[in-house]
Amino acid sequence: MEKQEMMYEGKAKQVYATDDPDRVIIHYKDDATAFNGLKKDSIRNKGVLNNKITTILFNELNRRGIATHWIETLNDRDQLCKKVRIVPLEVIVRNVVAGSMAKKFGIDEGTELKTPVYEICYKNDELGDPMINDTHAVGLGLATREELDQIYEITAQVNEALKEILDQIGIRLIDFKLEFGKDSTGRVLLADEISPDTCRFWEKGTDKKLDKDRFRRDMGDVIGAYEEIYGRLSQWVNTK
Amino acid sequence: MEKQEMMYEGKAKQVYATDDPDRVIIHYKDDATAFNGLKKDSIRNKGVLNNKITTILFNELNRRGIATHWIETLNDRDQLCKKVRIVPLEVIVRNVVAGSMAKKFGIDEGTELKTPVYEICYKNDELGDPMINDTHAVGLGLATREELDQIYEITAQVNEALKEILDQIGIRLIDFKLEFGKDSTGRVLLADEISPDTCRFWEKGTDKKLDKDRFRRDMGDVIGAYEEIYGRLSQWVNTK
Ligand SMILES: Nc1ncnc2c1ncn2[C@@H]1O[C@H](COP(=O)(O)OP(=O)(O)O)[C@@H](O)[C@H]1O
Ligand SMILES: Nc1ncnc2c1ncn2[C@@H]1O[C@H](COP(=O)(O)OP(=O)(O)O)[C@@H](O)[C@H]1O
Ligand SMILES: [Mg+2]
Ligand SMILES: [Mg+2]
Repeated sequence: MEKQEMMYEGKAKQVYATDDPDRVIIHYKDDATAFNGLKKDSIRNKGVLNNKITTILFNELNRRGIATHWIETLNDRDQLCKKVRIVPLEVIVRNVVAGSMAKKFGIDEGTELKTPVYEICYKNDELGDPMINDTHAVGLGLATREELDQIYEITAQVNEALKEILDQIGIRLIDFKLEFGKDSTGRVLLADEISPDTCRFWEKGTDKKLDKDRFRRDMGDVIGAYEEIYGRLSQWVNTK
Repeated sequence: MEKQEMMYEGKAKQVYATDDPDRVIIHYKDDATAFNGLKKDSIRNKGVLNNKITTILFNELNRRGIATHWIETLNDRDQLCKKVRIVPLEVIVRNVVAGSMAKKFGIDEGTELKTPVYEICYKNDELGDPMINDTHAVGLGLATREELDQIYEITAQVNEALKEILDQIGIRLIDFKLEFGKDSTGRVLLADEISPDTCRFWEKGTDKKLDKDRFRRDMGDVIGAYEEIYGRLSQWVNTK
């Protein structure tokens, strides 16, 4: 597979064309941003770890019959993926209250939710990724009702799978963000990444934060947290 | 029906107990507020007009088989209504983009929506009535899934009815806010009011604003706009 011109550069990854029009190479950078780009830094080796973590998780989701864009990982920073047209939505799942939801409702971080909360945000940096609902998404043509139904169905499956996997390695899945896209046949696939950049992972027992909140909140040892998640996951892969 | 102690005073209305535990008297005040109470004024006769406008519209909704709290109007400012436990949600319907939706998406006010947009806000002044979605409402116990289904069904019926009535009097229904409650048997009823305080009404042809935006945006002649809406509605009642 030949890496061709860069099609798009995002905040954490670059997307390259390949000689197959249905495939892209996704390159994981070390750049970290928060608060819609206001806070910026480079975290040595973050891209490598997020690539490895996403690889383990997407491989396992594929194995469980969940359709993802991931095909294979080529090296420390590059993944070969199915090319999709990204649905301009961020789909957030919350099992436990944290972050913006804690603020919005004045509820303590760490409060368990009886039923998972799903939020969708319009992926639009200029507008600040506002939270919207299904009627906005359909009314503005961001997704059809049928696409949303598929997205929510896959999202629920991903939540169940991730909770189960992470539980086995002593991690609580607090919340996470997914992105979806449509391949050339119109099929909805899980795309983007699943990593400490896009999830809140708390260590079972201690509730130690092992995710990007360490960067957002200047808690120190960001890369140590990412290494901890990767270490536990790779051990899980080797022993299962 | 005897008016007893005041049970609750809101920004625009007072709610009184009566000698029947299942009924309340709702008293319409002249107080006007906007921006979560930051802007305040008293608008002479507004309560009388909102009472009369709500009376015509709720009476017509009842006639069409939509279950509302309204029983009868007692005088210029008082309505006899079924007592309900208010569901702490504001349900917003948008047929045309305006107000906060225009701002949020950077879309011009006046843009027609292909399908109506429904929004729900958590009715909580301290939190600033934040927009939420169904999973928040269910997850936080503000309403059950079944109650939300009933609320959305009634809301769609109200939108169709109001659009049709207002069209007959030369008014475009841009958007509006509804509140719902449950009576002592657990039945979901449309409650609160439907008035220029809670709707955006634009005159067909000219798009002149005939609603509370005249107060919010200091456009002048607030009461003239409310009188215009009442005048057209009462003529419609007399000629139909
Ligand atoms: N399979 C794919 N095909 C095409 N684009 C993708 C695919 N997976 C992810 N993307 C997109 O790649 C872009 C780069 O990722 P990232 O750096 O995380 O961007 P962002 O700054 O938007 O968060 C994102 O817009 C993401 O939606
Ligand atoms: N039938 C009803 N029974 C009990 N309370 C009601 C009924 N209809 C409306 N209410 C409530 O009466 C209160 C007074 O109205 P209002 O002054 O508009 O309050 P607010 O300041 O919350 O907008 C509101 O909280 C409203 O939800
Ligand atoms: Mg991203
Ligand atoms: Mg009110």
